[in-house]
Amino acid sequence: MDDIVVTYRFGPGTDAEREARVIAVGQTAGTWDERWAFRADNLSRHLGRVKAVRPVGGGVEADVAFPAINVPEGVGALLTMIYGKYSLSGHSRVIDVRLPEDWGLSPRFGLRGIRDLTGVRDRPLFMGIFKPSLGLSPADLAAILGETGDAGLDIIKDDEIMPDLPGCTALDRVRACRPVLDRIREKRPGNGAMLYAVNLSGSGSTLLEKARMLVREGANALLVSAPAYGYSLLEALAADPEVGVPLFVHPAFSGAYSGASGHGLDWSVGLGTLPVRAGADAVLYPARYGSLAFSGEDESRIVTKLREAGVLPVPSAGIHPGILPRLMNDYGRDAALNAGTGIMDHPMGPAAGVRAFQEAFERWEKGWSFEPREIPEGPLKAAVDKWGMSTTPP
Amino acid sequence: MDDIVVTYRFGPGTDAEREARVIAVGQTAGTWDERWAFRADNLSRHLGRVKAVRPVGGGVEADVAFPAINVPEGVGALLTMIYGKYSLSGHSRVIDVRLPEDWGLSPRFGLRGIRDLTGVRDRPLFMGIFKPSLGLSPADLAAILGETGDAGLDIIKDDEIMPDLPGCTALDRVRACRPVLDRIREKRPGNGAMLYAVNLSGSGSTLLEKARMLVREGANALLVSAPAYGYSLLEALAADPEVGVPLFVHPAFSGAYSGASGHGLDWSVGLGTLPVRAGADAVLYPARYGSLAFSGEDESRIVTKLREAGVLPVPSAGIHPGILPRLMNDYGRDAALNAGTGIMDHPMGPAAGVRAFQEAFERWEKGWSFEPREIPEGPLKAAVDKWGMSTTPP
Repeated sequence: MDDIVVTYRFGPGTDAEREARVIAVGQTAGTWDERWAFRADNLSRHLGRVKAVRPVGGGVEADVAFPAINVPEGVGALLTMIYGKYSLSGHSRVIDVRLPEDWGLSPRFGLRGIRDLTGVRDRPLFMGIFKPSLGLSPADLAAILGETGDAGLDIIKDDEIMPDLPGCTALDRVRACRPVLDRIREKRPGNGAMLYAVNLSGSGSTLLEKARMLVREGANALLVSAPAYGYSLLEALAADPEVGVPLFVHPAFSGAYSGASGHGLDWSVGLGTLPVRAGADAVLYPARYGSLAFSGEDESRIVTKLREAGVLPVPSAGIHPGILPRLMNDYGRDAALNAGTGIMDHPMGPAAGVRAFQEAFERWEKGWSFEPREIPEGPLKAAVDKWGMSTTPP
Repeated sequence: MDDIVVTYRFGPGTDAEREARVIAVGQTAGTWDERWAFRADNLSRHLGRVKAVRPVGGGVEADVAFPAINVPEGVGALLTMIYGKYSLSGHSRVIDVRLPEDWGLSPRFGLRGIRDLTGVRDRPLFMGIFKPSLGLSPADLAAILGETGDAGLDIIKDDEIMPDLPGCTALDRVRACRPVLDRIREKRPGNGAMLYAVNLSGSGSTLLEKARMLVREGANALLVSAPAYGYSLLEALAADPEVGVPLFVHPAFSGAYSGASGHGLDWSVGLGTLPVRAGADAVLYPARYGSLAFSGEDESRIVTKLREAGVLPVPSAGIHPGILPRLMNDYGRDAALNAGTGIMDHPMGPAAGVRAFQEAFERWEKGWSFEPREIPEGPLKAAVDKWGMSTTPP
């Protein structure tokens, strides 16, 4: 089996050779003395090795190879080995984790499976978020779902903070929305489904059983804040035969371990490598257009990790119809464009928000201008008047 | 139900009033417009409130109150609400989380239950770690366990990186060690048990079933790297009727979200509040004596959170017999003193490492000097000659 190779970055002034050796030995067999000399062969099978140390702008990087036998499975075990105790020791950042190809899980659906379910072939998927976040009734949500679904929305999701509220549990929401989803499906060409990623929330003692129950009751996708609940939950859901629906991973809490640039996990590890190997079908992440401090380079590295594994990238934040040319330039067709306010706060209502995206896509395909004065009155014009437009990177 | 009150710290120059409002609104109901005016009563039930904003040395703190109804249960849901999306947004640190008293889980055993199981009443528990970390056989481990157990060690644990290796799975280790544990127990006054916290590792799809199986086969404690696997795993284990053994939480990976001082979670949240409310019985954390960059103040805040809930604090790192007077000064009797090399690398062997701790404790109780020239030849003298001594904070 190939090694697991991890790239660490250290700040300026760090003795990176020394730190890399501390990791390679301290996070594997540890040291041993003459008492265990007779086990030296076995102990050395588990030892990590420093493969390379090189200066990079403003710091030093080191590659450390870990025998894959040390971590047969599980993202939790992987994190414990490559950064567990060492994360407690000063500042360092895990830049990249290269795993044997068959290590961990693969998406059950991924981009291809979600295209099959929805019947959307040659364009990006359009995705919306129920707003306001908390406080609507299941009937309110079903009405929004019907309105946007009738307009052609492909996917809708709960806000990730949506808990099981009295009278508005995930089960209540699925029961209210399921008949609407059925009706929408019957009307679509080829009976493509609209997906509703219902938020899975609660105590770890209930989550797997709750997911099974929601799927039995008709949920056709789940939203899972895996960074906050732990990737072992995602592994459990992804491997469970009764949870056979696409798993949308939300990035909630991943900023806690990726948001400090000199420490923690690179975004492409936390929102790329980890969810991919834990069985995600789609991963949401902060797009560069939003108010969050996220760079195009961070995003590209995430998208590369997701695409290599066939997982659907879902850029989120700052997405509205007027920037569709730029979105197509940045992502191409194989992404889900996730708009919260960009659909729900459209001046003509949520259905017009969906139509504005469709109109923008048609216009882009035909190569027509996005200058406001060239766009005819209608949903796209209203969206551009409200939120502006952008065809190329600033 | 009382609110959940969270204290955030922001860096200098941040408009903390504004950020606190962003959190209070953006992480709860969000904004709404006239379309949902008829739901205003319900929406406002979920809104957070900024309770206070105050300057602190080199920054600003804000207290935000969240209606507890927003998070009925689950540490994952809690993190998603109080820091989920917001963690992706610039730099901020969660300093404290005050929860309703009955929120979440309580320890099944905790300090009191672990004292009952082991029969150790009036002194700190002595705890060791199998070393080297990887590469010993189950028989090697059983021999170390017998050697240290016969000397009177109270608790031993796997290294947290120990996976299920071929020929040395957790089950293999439990099977090899169980007869030794039985023999030790029969010899101890009142048949107090020596606990062996076996490391639970692997994919999330197997962990709960694996834990049940290990307990059926005789495991009498489990080691769980909850920060790496996710607190939802700990909740599942803590609530499961078939996993009725003490859960020792290892801090592996918690440095990823607590190690950058201006961002992430305060150590007392990540290693205090979260494991406590997810059902931990004992929590390991880096003691101030080790090589890790950990302050006495960080540690005290963790210990306070653990003690308030009856959870056993397990200071680890840099623990050796010669500093026992200082350990007693810093922790008193209600702690487990966890020594890796401080027992296993004793010049006279691991059993002498255990005896050195016992000798140190007796000496401390009698108020005798720890000056090397005053200590008679024997295990403690050898330990002090190797590692030195310390009676008071430096």
